Amino acid sequence: MQQIIKSDHLITDVEKAIQNIRHDKLFILTDENTHTHCFPLLAGIPLMRDAKEIVIPAGDTNKTIENLTRVWQLLTENGATRHSLLVNLGGGMVTDLGGFAAATFKRGISYINISTTLLGAVDAAVGGKTGINFEGYKNEIGSFYPSEAVIISSDFFHTLSHSDILSGYAEMIKHALIHSTAEWEEVLAYPFNEADYSKLNELVFRSVNIKQDIVEKDPYEKNIRKALNFGHTTAHAFESFAMNSEKPVPHGYAVAWGMIVELWLSYRLCGFPKEKLQRSVRFIQEHYGAFPISCDDYETLYEIARHDKKNIGDTIHFTLLSDIGDVQIDQTTDKELLFEAFDFYRDSVGL
Amino acid sequence: MQQIIKSDHLITDVEKAIQNIRHDKLFILTDENTHTHCFPLLAGIPLMRDAKEIVIPAGDTNKTIENLTRVWQLLTENGATRHSLLVNLGGGMVTDLGGFAAATFKRGISYINISTTLLGAVDAAVGGKTGINFEGYKNEIGSFYPSEAVIISSDFFHTLSHSDILSGYAEMIKHALIHSTAEWEEVLAYPFNEADYSKLNELVFRSVNIKQDIVEKDPYEKNIRKALNFGHTTAHAFESFAMNSEKPVPHGYAVAWGMIVELWLSYRLCGFPKEKLQRSVRFIQEHYGAFPISCDDYETLYEIARHDKKNIGDTIHFTLLSDIGDVQIDQTTDKELLFEAFDFYRDSVGL
Repeated sequence: MQQIIKSDHLITDVEKAIQNIRHDKLFILTDENTHTHCFPLLAGIPLMRDAKEIVIPAGDTNKTIENLTRVWQLLTENGATRHSLLVNLGGGMVTDLGGFAAATFKRGISYINISTTLLGAVDAAVGGKTGINFEGYKNEIGSFYPSEAVIISSDFFHTLSHSDILSGYAEMIKHALIHSTAEWEEVLAYPFNEADYSKLNELVFRSVNIKQDIVEKDPYEKNIRKALNFGHTTAHAFESFAMNSEKPVPHGYAVAWGMIVELWLSYRLCGFPKEKLQRSVRFIQEHYGAFPISCDDYETLYEIARHDKKNIGDTIHFTLLSDIGDVQIDQTTDKELLFEAFDFYRDSVGL
Repeated sequence: MQQIIKSDHLITDVEKAIQNIRHDKLFILTDENTHTHCFPLLAGIPLMRDAKEIVIPAGDTNKTIENLTRVWQLLTENGATRHSLLVNLGGGMVTDLGGFAAATFKRGISYINISTTLLGAVDAAVGGKTGINFEGYKNEIGSFYPSEAVIISSDFFHTLSHSDILSGYAEMIKHALIHSTAEWEEVLAYPFNEADYSKLNELVFRSVNIKQDIVEKDPYEKNIRKALNFGHTTAHAFESFAMNSEKPVPHGYAVAWGMIVELWLSYRLCGFPKEKLQRSVRFIQEHYGAFPISCDDYETLYEIARHDKKNIGDTIHFTLLSDIGDVQIDQTTDKELLFEAFDFYRDSVGL
């Protein structure tokens, strides 16, 4: 299982993590943003001097087979062996693509994830899921291949925009909803206007541990790991839809909006309490605004959702909740009820 | 661990193997040759009627990212889910590429290998190594992802050419060399001119079991599985060299020639008995002829070998033998001794 390192001294902690893994050559994967803003923070580490940096374009639309091929190529050309080490420095796009490159280069090399976004820290960096987008579908191609270590440092969070913080925060709402009412109360009470980083850090690490505990029980997502998919069947449909329209949305925002749809399905199909539905939906609507869909888009969204990896055959599978912390995996719904849920979503966010 | 099925009734055994794996949709991967010559043998299976066949061009030079992408695309377009099943019907190229497609499609689906060549049966189909060639390097990109089942049927061997039989037989010589003198005596005694399929079958299944036993002990090739790499460091260099010159050679032939080089290194570095070296080399030379290299190619071959996945850093690693059945992993040599081994190879095969 991957080691989760809560870093208080970035340079020392990264250096120690790299030294702990026997390797011959060191490679660093960054995107154009983390190359400029984050890589310099590691420049003081002597090991970095001989490391080869590989820079790819930023953004989820670049999580492609072309950029994956570019990483493979640069590893090959720079003499990477089966015993080389790759450090992914970035958000979920870099850790997903870099993790998949590591999983498949010479049938698998070791890698470390350093999360530079809140979303990356609470979501992509932990749990071993790697992959790229393909043919308009998110993470269609990938593998389960955990990093050796994940380094989470608040040094990167201070410079994140409000929407980057919110994007990560959506996964923390999800972790709270699948975990306990106490955690959910805490998460809903966070004072966004004050930007309390110490409080945020505390919440982040509790959140990462909720995820880690679940992944350890079920690494290949045969049963309880599906809890982490709460909100995600709809979120992935929203994201694919947005990507196809060439107006991509942040993953966390899609998860927040997806949770509105799936909280309503939870209420209708599993008896999720109405008051908790309303408070959760109000919090999301207040902070995340609306993803614009109309009734005319329902069929398209339905078709996209039918392609979700979590399905069995053509039936769409959801993870739902009968209460906070009470997860019901492998729930199905008919088209009509899903369209009602879309109606509820549109009402809730004021469309 | 994958189930090895020695099939005596192809239709019944394939049907049973498919039924044993819960799945929603069935896909069959063939190449242009197995589509024409082997797929019809399975046409009598009712399950095949609803299966979607994916056909790729034949030959190791087609084990490319382009053909992999085509398989991913056809799986996506035909509604494959995480619960779909892929049957690879072909030689090593089909099972390697198809296995890697299965390993990475929606982070991994189940698959079955049906070996249509002797080489595929004794080598590629068993052991979970999947992959494609990349940038002129063999299996540069891939993963460890075993099939659910491997079906080995002599129905396919009867129609193989003499050189296809020989190509597979080289891996059987290797398995004998790493296993026991008794096995080696048996393998060297096989009457090629008589084409005794019953005897061949017996040898094949013993050979597959030698491999399976080793893989079970060390699936990720951390130590003893490296025994299976005997002859292969040199073989891969010969193959890459041949591929770069656009004159590809059969894998098994490259292994046979590679074993001459590495038996000589075993003799020089590990005290492998001279008499067994001479008898093995004579058998190989008699049946496999020569791969044409000259002194001028040594540097190029050396550079290619330095890129072998089995290396640590820039040092070339070999699996050698101090006697038959007595494996020495992680052996290294300097350039000079390797060039001497190339000289010995050229002398032995009459170049």
